[in-house]
Order: sequence, then structure tokens, then C-alpha cells
Amino acid sequence: MPATDTVHIHLSDDRNYEIRIGSGLLNEPASWQGLPKAAAAVIVSNETVAPLYAERLRERLLAVYKRVDLVVLPDGEQHKGWESLNRICDHLLGEALDRKTVLFALGGGVIGDMTGFAAAIYMRGVPFVQVPTTLLAQVDSSVGGKTAINHPLGKNMLGAFYQPERVIADLDTLDTLPDRELRAGLAEVIKYGPIADAAFLCWIEDNLDALLSRDKAVLGYAVRRSCEIKADVVGQDEKEQGLRAILNFGHTIGHAIESGLGYGEWLHGEAVACGMVLAADLSQRMGLMPADFVERLQTLIERAGLPVKPPRLGADRYLQLMRVDKKAEAGAIRFVLIEALGQAGLHSVPDALIVETLAAHGAA
Amino acid sequence: MPATDTVHIHLSDDRNYEIRIGSGLLNEPASWQGLPKAAAAVIVSNETVAPLYAERLRERLLAVYKRVDLVVLPDGEQHKGWESLNRICDHLLGEALDRKTVLFALGGGVIGDMTGFAAAIYMRGVPFVQVPTTLLAQVDSSVGGKTAINHPLGKNMLGAFYQPERVIADLDTLDTLPDRELRAGLAEVIKYGPIADAAFLCWIEDNLDALLSRDKAVLGYAVRRSCEIKADVVGQDEKEQGLRAILNFGHTIGHAIESGLGYGEWLHGEAVACGMVLAADLSQRMGLMPADFVERLQTLIERAGLPVKPPRLGADRYLQLMRVDKKAEAGAIRFVLIEALGQAGLHSVPDALIVETLAAHGAA
Repeated sequence: MPATDTVHIHLSDDRNYEIRIGSGLLNEPASWQGLPKAAAAVIVSNETVAPLYAERLRERLLAVYKRVDLVVLPDGEQHKGWESLNRICDHLLGEALDRKTVLFALGGGVIGDMTGFAAAIYMRGVPFVQVPTTLLAQVDSSVGGKTAINHPLGKNMLGAFYQPERVIADLDTLDTLPDRELRAGLAEVIKYGPIADAAFLCWIEDNLDALLSRDKAVLGYAVRRSCEIKADVVGQDEKEQGLRAILNFGHTIGHAIESGLGYGEWLHGEAVACGMVLAADLSQRMGLMPADFVERLQTLIERAGLPVKPPRLGADRYLQLMRVDKKAEAGAIRFVLIEALGQAGLHSVPDALIVETLAAHGAA
Repeated sequence: MPATDTVHIHLSDDRNYEIRIGSGLLNEPASWQGLPKAAAAVIVSNETVAPLYAERLRERLLAVYKRVDLVVLPDGEQHKGWESLNRICDHLLGEALDRKTVLFALGGGVIGDMTGFAAAIYMRGVPFVQVPTTLLAQVDSSVGGKTAINHPLGKNMLGAFYQPERVIADLDTLDTLPDRELRAGLAEVIKYGPIADAAFLCWIEDNLDALLSRDKAVLGYAVRRSCEIKADVVGQDEKEQGLRAILNFGHTIGHAIESGLGYGEWLHGEAVACGMVLAADLSQRMGLMPADFVERLQTLIERAGLPVKPPRLGADRYLQLMRVDKKAEAGAIRFVLIEALGQAGLHSVPDALIVETLAAHGAA
């Protein structure tokens, strides 16, 4: 069993919190000590994860809180909307829970984003803790304070920057993760290489088989290094005034795929994987990167069992979907492009070039 | 015509903004200069206010923004919920407006609270400007960054602390305010006396007739002094960790009246007026204030044409409604009580004493 790793997130005005990474953390009493005092805690989870871990977490939390409620939402990206958000708020108000109540997000990215958003708006803000149980949530979505729900017209369009009190990433919860979701999580791990750390990209290439066979020590390192990179970026730019946008490499086309096919058809990580292939291609077309980088990234993504061929939605539909992207400005679509291995930046890309890339990948 | 007064709000981490108060500000080009640059602005207003002022504001804004949209919502507290909030978000997304878009809240407290909340969550935050057209919004709700919507189980239960870029309080817009709404606004003006400024309470007593007859210079002073007091309190405690709660004098019972009768039955200011009478009575029962203070406040509120007798909802229903109040903690109802003229604090009050007060006022 690997020891517990702790990554610190330091934000402006002295706010900071810990991401704890390790095996057995769910059962570890220390994981749940030193959080804000409250009369009640509420675990928010989904129909898949709750039966596996909710009772165990509830028992641990009852050592700290007099009352621990459980709200179980339907599973899947297609349920990340107003209706599920309302179910959390309705429970909190129906039980007259006060504004010290601590919410615990037990699940993947969807649960984390929705619980965080509910915590941000309930009585204008209650504390919350992220307990990510998927690789994707452990390496990306549970860290950094982006919370949101989807809108039929665009992904993550309504939300808030709202930081958790703590992130508890128990590597043992990955044991129950379906293979498809493990691979989807690897997409976000791979992402950190090209945008921030060329050496980490090499490490992933060398350790991909161990990651896929769920070697706990190797997974632990992947989670820690991913969180370190994210903590560094978020610490410099919490509210995405600039730098933070690089974490969205692959997400412009990725979000278009998710919302164009209907949420839940492709997993978020699958859409991002495919989006990275096309964004790498755009980086080449913009003269920023050589062709061998595009091939190298595509090879790694294929080895991880992730899709590299986008769905054929048609160029017009892709452009329409991408124009509502949060990074778009005054109608111009902007992409995170790779400028050198380990370095990325935000670039306006002419529509014609985007159409070329889409056509070259059979999407137009 | 009185000159423009400017009150500054200074928040932590160097954020600050101006409240400009005066006649003719809507038509004044300077009111709309120096705001964040954007390709588009969106005016959010309601069916009552939009026909009066939206076109004029739109013309002024077109000197600054290429595109100025208008979203018109139904009028009234009963429409301050998910549905109206969604209509704002649907418009923004339907028109693919980007995250630099500036929202302008043109109307009373309901429009200001909802527009501010939409600005807080659209793409995790876009800039917004408050253009309050009611006395209540000019002296209270447009200032200080509390945004929210109502929930069937409680008033302002979902929201965010999110500050505007600027507040433009044009006193001329009060000319079209119905008499009932003017009086409701005076409730929040009166509030500032007992909680923060005994001299201001005397001034209101001396100038009430001029306020009711809409003397512009006297109204201007009332708005300015109210904003100064609020700016001072909010500057010390933006997110209501403590002090800021005093601004909620009269609101615990007030919110219960509003949600107990159904939103829109009583105006917010009317409910707060009546709530102040009962909270003054509680201050006496708790041994904090003498009986003549209760009489003095009740006399002033009656002179302003505001209700002093709460609806007979029954003690149990009142207690149930107040237990979901945001100030409640671990089931204990907490009231802002007056401790001395010009000084208030948050106090837990035993249920039995609350029931006594309700019974004494025919509400139980």
C-alpha cells in the first residue's frame, strides 16, 4: 500500500486546501477530521457509486457529525442539469439544514461538479468536500474549484468558481471503476504532458500498460503528478483570466462532441481524447508543432483505448457548437494549442482551418 | 436638481465599486463609460419597468456596446425563481453571448437579485451593473452583492455573493414608482436608524413627510446615507461571517410572512416593516431595549403607511418557516435585535419568547 501523498492548492488571499491521495483513505478517520464544524453533513452520490461506498463513508462521518444524510442522484452526464441540482437543494431545504452543513461529493466528475455548484449557491455558500471515485475526477475535475451544470445548448455553461475544503482521493475506489471509465480518466492524465510537462508525457508512454492494469503505485503517481500540475496552474489563475485555460486542451472539440451527440453518449474523457487529437492537428496546421508530435499523441491515445475519430456531425454543426464555448470571444472560436512540448496557449483559429481539420478526420 | 453623489464600496483584495446617486443619471453618458469592454450588453428588466426606461437605457448603451439585447421578465416576487433565472440564461446561450457580455439589471430588487445571480453563474461569472429603479433597490438590494432566487420553502435560499461593477441610482426613476412601493422602500431606510445610526433615525422622523411627498433632495439624502451605512457594513463583512447580519433586522419574521402568505402577497418592504416591529418587541422582551423604543419605531412605521400587524399564520407555522432562515443554526432561530439605539447584534431567542411576541401581535 503506497503512503498518503498530499498536494497543496494555494490560492490568493490565503485560501488553501489539501488534496490527499492514497489507498484506504475512505476508512481513515484522519481523512474526515479538522473539517468545518457542523450539526449535519450530506453525502451526494449516484445510483452506481452509492451502493459501493456511501454506507462506509456515512459511518466514518457519523464519528464527526451528529447527522449524516444521503442524496442519491441518477448516474450519467445527461443528468448533470437543473433537475438534479434541484434535487440536492430540495433535500437541503426540505430538511431545513443550516448554512454550516457540509456537503460531501462522492462519485465522479458529474457528482463533484453538481455538488460543488449546489454548495456554492445553497444559502449563498456552504462548505463541501470532494471524494472523487473515478480516475477522471481524481486527476482533474475534483481539483481546482470549477463547478457547473450543463445546459441543453452547451456543456458546463452555468456554474461557479467555488473551492472545496479538502479533496480525498482514495485510490482503492478505482478498483470498482469500469474499464471504459478508467480509460476515459487516462485522457485527462495524458493531457497534462503536452500542456505542461514533456517528461510526464514520456513517463505515461512508458507506464501506460501498468496504468491500464491498475498498478496501484503507478496510478498513485499519475494522480499525484496530475494534481501537482493542476494545483500549480490553478494557484496562478484561479478564475481563468488567462493561464488556466490551458487545462482545456482538447475540450473545445470535446465539448462540441458531447453536446452534439447528446450528453452521455461519449464519456467526457473520450470526447477530450478525440478533441486532443484534433487540437494537436490544428497546432500543426497553425505551424506551431511538427507532424511527428501529432502522430505521437494520437498513438498514445489509441494505445489507451480511446477514440481518435470524431463523430460525423458536419462542419457547420461543429462550428455552431463551438461558438458557444466559454473561451469564444466576439464570435471567434479559440483553441488551446500546443506551442512546444510542455507548453500551451490560447489561439484564435480561422474557421477555414477548423473545417480543414474536421474534414481531414472525417467529421465534416 | 441635486448633484451626483458617489458612495464607494471597498471590499477585501482591492475590489471596489461606485454607487452613483442623482437625478438624470440614466441619460448621463458618463454613467455608462469606463465599464468592462464587451461586444454585447444585455438589459434585464420586467414588464412594468421596461416600457418606461429600457429604450432610453438601450440608446445610451449603444454608444458603448455594438449590440444591446433586452430580456423582459414578468413582474413580482412570485416570479423570482428558477423559471425566470432560466429565461435569462436561455437568452444568453441561445444568442451565444460570450463571457465578456455585461448584464444590466434595470428594475427593483427582484430584477437586481435575479440578474446578479444569472451574472454570477453564466459561464461561471460575467460582469453586471445595477440600475435600481425602486427606492428599496436603491437603498438596499442593489448594493452589496447579495444575489438570489426564492425557493418554495424559503426566501433567497439559492444565490451567490457577487458584486456589481457599478450601481447607477437615478432618483428620477422614483417619479414613476407607485406609492405602495415607495412606502415599502422606506421600510429599509428606516431600518438603518436603529441598527447603525440614531441620528439618522431622528432625521427620518423629521423628514418623513418630505420623503412621502417625494422631495428629490430629501430622497437623495436618504438614499445616500442608507448606501453609506450599507457600504460601511459590507466593506467590513462582505460574506456575512458576522456583522453583516445586522442588515437583516426585521427580516427573520419578514421572510416568514412573505413565504408563508405566498410570495408577492405582501411587498418585501411591508413584511420587513412588520418584522421590525416584532423584532423590536423581542429586543424589549430580551431586556435589551425599553418599551418606549418599541413604541417609537412602531409609530414611525405606521406614519410611513406600513403594516405593523402580522398575518395570523399561527405560531407553529411561523416557527417552521423561521427554522429554515439562513441565520438559523442547528435548529435555533436567531434574530437581529437592537441592543442600543444605533447598535444591533445577532441573538438566539427561545421559542417560547417568540411565541409570546407572535401572540401579543395577534399572529399566533
